[in-house]
Amino acid sequence: MKLINNPDKSQWAEILKRPVMNTENLFDTVRGIIDRVRAEGDRAVLEMEAKFDKVELASLVVTEAELKEAETLVDEKLKAAIRLAKQNIETFHAAQRFESKKVETMPGVTCWQKAVAIEKVGLYIPGGTAPLFSTVLMLAVPAKIAGCKEIVLCTPPDREGRVHPAILFAAQVAGVNRIFKAGGVQAIASMAYGTESVPKVYKIFGPGNQYVTAAKQLVSLRDVAIDMPAGPSEVEVLADETADPVFVAADLLSQAEHGVDSQAVLITTSEALQQAVKAEVERQLELLPRKEIAEKSLANSKLIVVKDMEEALELTNEYAPEHLIVETADYMQVAERVVNAGSVFLGSLSPESAGDYASGTNHTLPTNGYAKAYSGVSLDSFIRKITFQEIRPEGMKNIGPAIEEMAANEHLDAHKNAVTVRLNKLRVES
Amino acid sequence: MKLINNPDKSQWAEILKRPVMNTENLFDTVRGIIDRVRAEGDRAVLEMEAKFDKVELASLVVTEAELKEAETLVDEKLKAAIRLAKQNIETFHAAQRFESKKVETMPGVTCWQKAVAIEKVGLYIPGGTAPLFSTVLMLAVPAKIAGCKEIVLCTPPDREGRVHPAILFAAQVAGVNRIFKAGGVQAIASMAYGTESVPKVYKIFGPGNQYVTAAKQLVSLRDVAIDMPAGPSEVEVLADETADPVFVAADLLSQAEHGVDSQAVLITTSEALQQAVKAEVERQLELLPRKEIAEKSLANSKLIVVKDMEEALELTNEYAPEHLIVETADYMQVAERVVNAGSVFLGSLSPESAGDYASGTNHTLPTNGYAKAYSGVSLDSFIRKITFQEIRPEGMKNIGPAIEEMAANEHLDAHKNAVTVRLNKLRVES
Repeated sequence: MKLINNPDKSQWAEILKRPVMNTENLFDTVRGIIDRVRAEGDRAVLEMEAKFDKVELASLVVTEAELKEAETLVDEKLKAAIRLAKQNIETFHAAQRFESKKVETMPGVTCWQKAVAIEKVGLYIPGGTAPLFSTVLMLAVPAKIAGCKEIVLCTPPDREGRVHPAILFAAQVAGVNRIFKAGGVQAIASMAYGTESVPKVYKIFGPGNQYVTAAKQLVSLRDVAIDMPAGPSEVEVLADETADPVFVAADLLSQAEHGVDSQAVLITTSEALQQAVKAEVERQLELLPRKEIAEKSLANSKLIVVKDMEEALELTNEYAPEHLIVETADYMQVAERVVNAGSVFLGSLSPESAGDYASGTNHTLPTNGYAKAYSGVSLDSFIRKITFQEIRPEGMKNIGPAIEEMAANEHLDAHKNAVTVRLNKLRVES
Repeated sequence: MKLINNPDKSQWAEILKRPVMNTENLFDTVRGIIDRVRAEGDRAVLEMEAKFDKVELASLVVTEAELKEAETLVDEKLKAAIRLAKQNIETFHAAQRFESKKVETMPGVTCWQKAVAIEKVGLYIPGGTAPLFSTVLMLAVPAKIAGCKEIVLCTPPDREGRVHPAILFAAQVAGVNRIFKAGGVQAIASMAYGTESVPKVYKIFGPGNQYVTAAKQLVSLRDVAIDMPAGPSEVEVLADETADPVFVAADLLSQAEHGVDSQAVLITTSEALQQAVKAEVERQLELLPRKEIAEKSLANSKLIVVKDMEEALELTNEYAPEHLIVETADYMQVAERVVNAGSVFLGSLSPESAGDYASGTNHTLPTNGYAKAYSGVSLDSFIRKITFQEIRPEGMKNIGPAIEEMAANEHLDAHKNAVTVRLNKLRVES
């Protein structure tokens, strides 16, 4: 951990730098796999599974029998936790439903938006050391509430060709329609273009390593929408002297254990807290099973002291953290002034873990400073708002002449004429 | 125009094919310009303006004097039309304001979303044959309502170094902060990375040719968000035997005059209408100043007869048109069943021109079938919804054990520990 005290503003850009992922060079490799899946379908996906996931699959499809078996394999305590989390995620996302209202912009001109679910969505759940069943809930629950008709999930199987039962259980609880054994670039390509087994979808969601991210970006250039660009996870704790260093240390470590490129940053007005957190991180680190990962990631992490809360907020908004934990006495006032962050955790009893799993908010969030322009995943991510308008005779008379004038000045006479023929008919009729 | 009658479903994919834009090969050229602007700033932009827009500029900045002069150059009738359009766009987009509500997902666990404006946005307005002041309104008005602090606009100047006065007037009416003379790839790169003159923004909006589109896509891979991928404009008219062929023809032509790659499609249940529209298009075409463009674009356009409204709707939703005009007797019932479209115009008095200019809806819409996954530009495009959560002691007791269980099963012990330390403290206190 780097201790940084009262940095000059000229140093901010350097201090806030994130570990850089160079995706540029990946694109050629990734494009090659995408093209093969697009051309050859299942055959290419099965070959890539053998190559990258070291598994010989007879079929990509997760069967009914496998789903039933998964239910018997997950222990009751975990099932109850998944159901509780699902319920809270559902409650929060259902409250995000869009209520359409008609707006009469001028007499006789009525306009409105209607929320319509994206018909087909694809969710990617990475494999690796941990089964990310929580991400299944975070993506499938809002998709279901939105009313997506086809919710497809791809996830890499283990070397015996099995998907972790907790993932299959969460997928069933959340309402996923079809599950396929496919990982990495080949999974993204399958959902982007469709194969004999995997249906083509209109939007792809979910985290992944740099290959998956590059694949999502490439297919999004033309063929399918994606949730957002993804980078390594990150947390900032914004704290004053009232914060509990044990909690702060635990929060920083819960980010550090994610991966060696994760970022954990403390911004505080208290040098005493900075010192106490440093000591506490070192103490707690010793007890962690994933100590090795956390240790490497902590090498990039910073404990920054600034002169006052004003400056702390300015630095925070410049950083635009994915997760922001505010442990200050007046956290509600501080929250009012946060303009760039993905998800904000307020007070000493709101750790990032709560939002990662079970409070109800989504954990798919903008990293890498993207919070300046992007929201996290929400119900909005699974719908489109289509605009409608109905113009009646009075309305056409009200806006018609202005349209004619503007169209003529943009040299678009056919645009003008589409109004003129209508105004003429109204004149004849009246 | 191609007349297509009762096509078999196996032909649908072929019929619905759009003119293909091959952007792949553009990317190298475009990347070169972006890199130069990124490295050299204003100097590179000025050089590109000389090269591509054939103009020697002393400065990129549009001055106060130029803005004042523009006001005197636009005639009063056009000013009044622009003000009327601005008012309606404002009314419709202001009604889209997001109202935050707190949700208690479990006792003691409160979550909410807050809409926060994107602080800095960049708007691109293309040059070319027509001054697109209407697009200035469509992008700047919602940006202003959202509360974006910095609204930057780039547009190419003419060969005398001037920006069209109607663009400058609309920009002032809509509340643009700063205007720069820059076009094409160099404009997009300027706003993505900032130059000495042009500030860096977080999200870039606006239409453009294939170079501009490729530039937006390239910078969006890492550095800045964009509104949506853009392709040539398109309209579908969905009509039954009650539709007025004069109106339908005028609507198809108002799309065709946009550019040679524009698409205009009629889907109807009436062969009589198909024939009448064909004749009427040919008649109206003769009267158009942009006849040559419209003629070329009409070569791609299709007048399709299907067996019933059921099939018409299925084909429409498969096509996912940017603009959909519904001229049927029961247009409200038809509208209920539209799931894939950008903006829908209902009844015989709602031409696309209305939404293009003055009814209040936005005209920046998803083309190329993207309506299956994307919405058009709306107030949402200029905000982010940040999630917040506040957990109180009762809430931590309610969800804490579920979080511990899930974190342990994802092998994320530090995540678990962030909850455990808090539950321990609550136990000590109670």
